[in-house]
Amino acid sequence: MKTSVTQENLAKAVSAVSRMVSNRSALPVLSNILIATESGRLKLSATNLEVGINYWIGAKVEEEGSITVPARLFQEFITSLSDGNIDLATDGDSLVVEAPQVKSSINGIGAEEFPLIPQLKTEPVLQLTADELKDALAQVVVAASSDEARPVLTGVYIYNEGNKLILVSTDSYRLAEKKITLKKKPTTDINLIVPARTIQELVRLLGDSEAGLSLFVSDNQIMFEIDGVELTSRLIDGQFPDYRQIIPKGSETVIEAATDEVSRVTKLASLFARENAGSIRLDVKAEGRMDVVANPSQVGENTSSTNCQVEGENSEISLNARYLSDALGVIKNDNLTIILNGKLNPCVIHPADDKPDYLHIIMPLRT
Amino acid sequence: MKTSVTQENLAKAVSAVSRMVSNRSALPVLSNILIATESGRLKLSATNLEVGINYWIGAKVEEEGSITVPARLFQEFITSLSDGNIDLATDGDSLVVEAPQVKSSINGIGAEEFPLIPQLKTEPVLQLTADELKDALAQVVVAASSDEARPVLTGVYIYNEGNKLILVSTDSYRLAEKKITLKKKPTTDINLIVPARTIQELVRLLGDSEAGLSLFVSDNQIMFEIDGVELTSRLIDGQFPDYRQIIPKGSETVIEAATDEVSRVTKLASLFARENAGSIRLDVKAEGRMDVVANPSQVGENTSSTNCQVEGENSEISLNARYLSDALGVIKNDNLTIILNGKLNPCVIHPADDKPDYLHIIMPLRT
Repeated sequence: MKTSVTQENLAKAVSAVSRMVSNRSALPVLSNILIATESGRLKLSATNLEVGINYWIGAKVEEEGSITVPARLFQEFITSLSDGNIDLATDGDSLVVEAPQVKSSINGIGAEEFPLIPQLKTEPVLQLTADELKDALAQVVVAASSDEARPVLTGVYIYNEGNKLILVSTDSYRLAEKKITLKKKPTTDINLIVPARTIQELVRLLGDSEAGLSLFVSDNQIMFEIDGVELTSRLIDGQFPDYRQIIPKGSETVIEAATDEVSRVTKLASLFARENAGSIRLDVKAEGRMDVVANPSQVGENTSSTNCQVEGENSEISLNARYLSDALGVIKNDNLTIILNGKLNPCVIHPADDKPDYLHIIMPLRT
Repeated sequence: MKTSVTQENLAKAVSAVSRMVSNRSALPVLSNILIATESGRLKLSATNLEVGINYWIGAKVEEEGSITVPARLFQEFITSLSDGNIDLATDGDSLVVEAPQVKSSINGIGAEEFPLIPQLKTEPVLQLTADELKDALAQVVVAASSDEARPVLTGVYIYNEGNKLILVSTDSYRLAEKKITLKKKPTTDINLIVPARTIQELVRLLGDSEAGLSLFVSDNQIMFEIDGVELTSRLIDGQFPDYRQIIPKGSETVIEAATDEVSRVTKLASLFARENAGSIRLDVKAEGRMDVVANPSQVGENTSSTNCQVEGENSEISLNARYLSDALGVIKNDNLTIILNGKLNPCVIHPADDKPDYLHIIMPLRT
């Protein structure tokens, strides 16, 4: 291999790709990233066997070739170089890197040991923009489970109903559902579960991009493609539970309040709730006030109030403070709606909107 | 106790004071901060028995009193409150905190269990400004040892020669010395060793302040006083080694280079030097170039160059990359001077200046 790239492009690609590298892999080559010339461009790849990434950048290719090099060293090294051109060349199992006033040789592993990251060479199932998918995924993945005992709950369930794309996660204590209206129906119906870790990496990768994003699906894999980057992930086997039954229909008490105010009082109460396993109580007064209460514990007690609009009767509910602040953290609207149906039924939180496209449901704590 | 303070003042004080609290103390009261009314102000105190802090803020005092409360909870709580007045009152061993729409009770421990932080009620030995002492301390403490086997090296040695105040640290592999010219001679001669941890806390505490700072000394304690804050520390017993003998007199090869350029090439080499215990080599060419070389190791090798002015002969020296970057990190001048006397003698680094007030000496590695 003999090729030349700009430091800026290479640094961006290496930073994105090296995130997928597992630091604790038993297979040394999985700590490396693959660098390969391909059709006049340079391809960087990494995989942890669950999710893999291929990242193409423009390059002047003089000699085709490929090699793998340690991800961490290569990333730190490339991002520490100044702007300018970087020459890359293989020398046996080493990669020789030359930049102005810098010459390095990095010991690598032959590219033939690197696992293949499949490219799903089908038609895209659907297309949308990076920013709309990113925000939606971030709002949903927060509710996914980290308990491997029920694998289907450790992912984001993605399906469609006509031109509605619906994203759902739940860890059985809380549930988040987001609906996106697509310009065009998917070419085939979608019904799959993507690992939460893949989704978290995808959210980071999408960054602030507003580019178009295509989604490709095979039997057991999904691929997201955007601007010369492909993220390929295994899917989670199994049937996502029929979650619609737990979305409460009633609306005995409906609160509308400023999102940052509710965040502030939740934060205060949560400090005092640590000894009580995070349990805090929302105490809603029909006259227009919500108290957030941390009950007396070893450390003390706290009550903080916020003004709000209340429709319906006085109500109260005990919630896990962390679940509530996770939900508040992903609601970007200035105002939010909280719906209570007594202290034994789940609480619904959504952006203040007559037809919200996002619902966050939290199960009550029995106290 | 019954008193009222502003959130802004209290948050600032609590944040500064709670830093001194040890999280791993066997004595529960040492995880707490003391809050006490005193002469119409509110005093906050914390100590880890090595260093203690008293921090006064303005307060409206209705009833004298004192209590201790858990530092971490109190700090997170107070800094999470909005601007405005905060009322503090004791209720038995609890502290009741009221702010607009917030009411809390924090369980504490009686103030009588809190150790006394001595105030050195003597005349100040010397006075200078916070910013000049802070920068000087930060430049020196980086070379202090963390090895408790030789306690005198775990501190900053502070002494005076007439109106010169001299600060020194060494871990025996490197040494940093800074001279400050005082407007007035100290009232008595100074010759003491302050623990590096105290110095690090003092540097943080001084922040960007340009206020006047007074220094008080007793037999085994030192107190720094600035703007209503007193930091009191034990001193380290013992005799600091006579370090002046190791400051090289010669100047066979004198290099002047841009500080950020030397930092950049050092960083690049250090990435490749990890497997070689951080060993890098400076290779100086009389024609005006310095190569920083990481020798071949398991990961690879690297040579980076920077242009520089060289007086004298070609020279080279092997150094620990971390020691070199520590030194570069505290030299704020655009240009620096490196003095070499062959590969077996210590290397001297100082800001480019005919009469530098700062010297950093690094022992060579034998290779």
